[in-house]
Amino acid sequence: MKKQIDILQDILGTNQKIAREIRAACGGKGIFVVNLMSSPGAGKTTLLESLAGLLKDRLRMAVIEGDIETERDAERVRAKGVPAWQITTGGACHLEARMVARLLPAVGADVDILFIENVGNLVCPAGYDLGERLRVVLLSSPEGDDKPKKYPKAFRTAQVLLLTKADLLPHLPFDVQRAKAEALEINPRLQIFVLSAVTGEGMNAFADFLISERARMRDADA
Amino acid sequence: MKKQIDILQDILGTNQKIAREIRAACGGKGIFVVNLMSSPGAGKTTLLESLAGLLKDRLRMAVIEGDIETERDAERVRAKGVPAWQITTGGACHLEARMVARLLPAVGADVDILFIENVGNLVCPAGYDLGERLRVVLLSSPEGDDKPKKYPKAFRTAQVLLLTKADLLPHLPFDVQRAKAEALEINPRLQIFVLSAVTGEGMNAFADFLISERARMRDADA
Repeated sequence: MKKQIDILQDILGTNQKIAREIRAACGGKGIFVVNLMSSPGAGKTTLLESLAGLLKDRLRMAVIEGDIETERDAERVRAKGVPAWQITTGGACHLEARMVARLLPAVGADVDILFIENVGNLVCPAGYDLGERLRVVLLSSPEGDDKPKKYPKAFRTAQVLLLTKADLLPHLPFDVQRAKAEALEINPRLQIFVLSAVTGEGMNAFADFLISERARMRDADA
Repeated sequence: MKKQIDILQDILGTNQKIAREIRAACGGKGIFVVNLMSSPGAGKTTLLESLAGLLKDRLRMAVIEGDIETERDAERVRAKGVPAWQITTGGACHLEARMVARLLPAVGADVDILFIENVGNLVCPAGYDLGERLRVVLLSSPEGDDKPKKYPKAFRTAQVLLLTKADLLPHLPFDVQRAKAEALEINPRLQIFVLSAVTGEGMNAFADFLISERARMRDADA
């Protein structure tokens, strides 16, 4: 057990170091990095497809997709005219900073906002800093309003919570106020958006928020 | 890396040994053990609440609940009159056989079917045998019909696939035939049920299946 813990600490220490390098390098190029985390099927890729339209002509967007297998998500994003790179982890349950670092030369400098879509998993990705400036956790209405306290780390370490698939709320017992209250109990500083990438509800507000957060980063770094 | 791989192999080897002991011990007592795996919020606990009613007077049911935090799921199952024990992993992303083994004395012998509800995670639990006779993976319609190939291990190692939340199908782009075909491509022996624990659709067929599978185990062990 001791040996396992030492090794885990080595991995996390190395990850943290690389994440700091990514944050510095991307900050220097004016790239605002956003780490998207959620359960499988909470709507991360659909969100990116919707943002591709909303951010067009406002920010140059790029995407790194993390999945265990398949290029499917990168293909969906590319079909919206956004450059995308796929990482397939081949079994691993989360992205690590070194996987992202390896792709940064390909991403280049002509990017204003770089989304990293993590592996669909509400547990493991929360432990790994990817060098992001903004960590966003998605909770979709069909998953249930009881999830924040059951999977607290993702909610504790994020700055933003998106309550997604708001279009399905009429068909579900999901209580938006309960989910918000529980998430805020874990992390009182969470900024929360209720949205649907299908109907567009709440999407403009989130797109505007991203633009202003990027501007804030630029000011802070200047 | 070598050291990491060695340690992982140690963990999995030890897990496998304990899982075999659980399988033998439960088989000897006529306890049919079912491991339920899925993403968070795919409907595992709601399925168990529904089965509590359907199996009543037919099989003595018990449940071991796995979660990172909270007793919520065990409380929901107990409210249906079914004995339930909660394992909180305190951060770990899956159950391991040793966690189950520790609870077996409490579960006792007056049980016909023991469900183990794994941590909500479509990735990590697939790597850990818990001593089950039947591994069941749930995929809920809101998660999307593209999930089997993106998270193949859970589908490859299960004997049964439940396509849950069928009541939401009219509101979603989920293609049942696509999901089935893709899952069967990964694992041609999968038995698939389409069901809704809310409306009851498909639930009787699945309950009957569990009863006949338990009988088959008893015959095989006799």
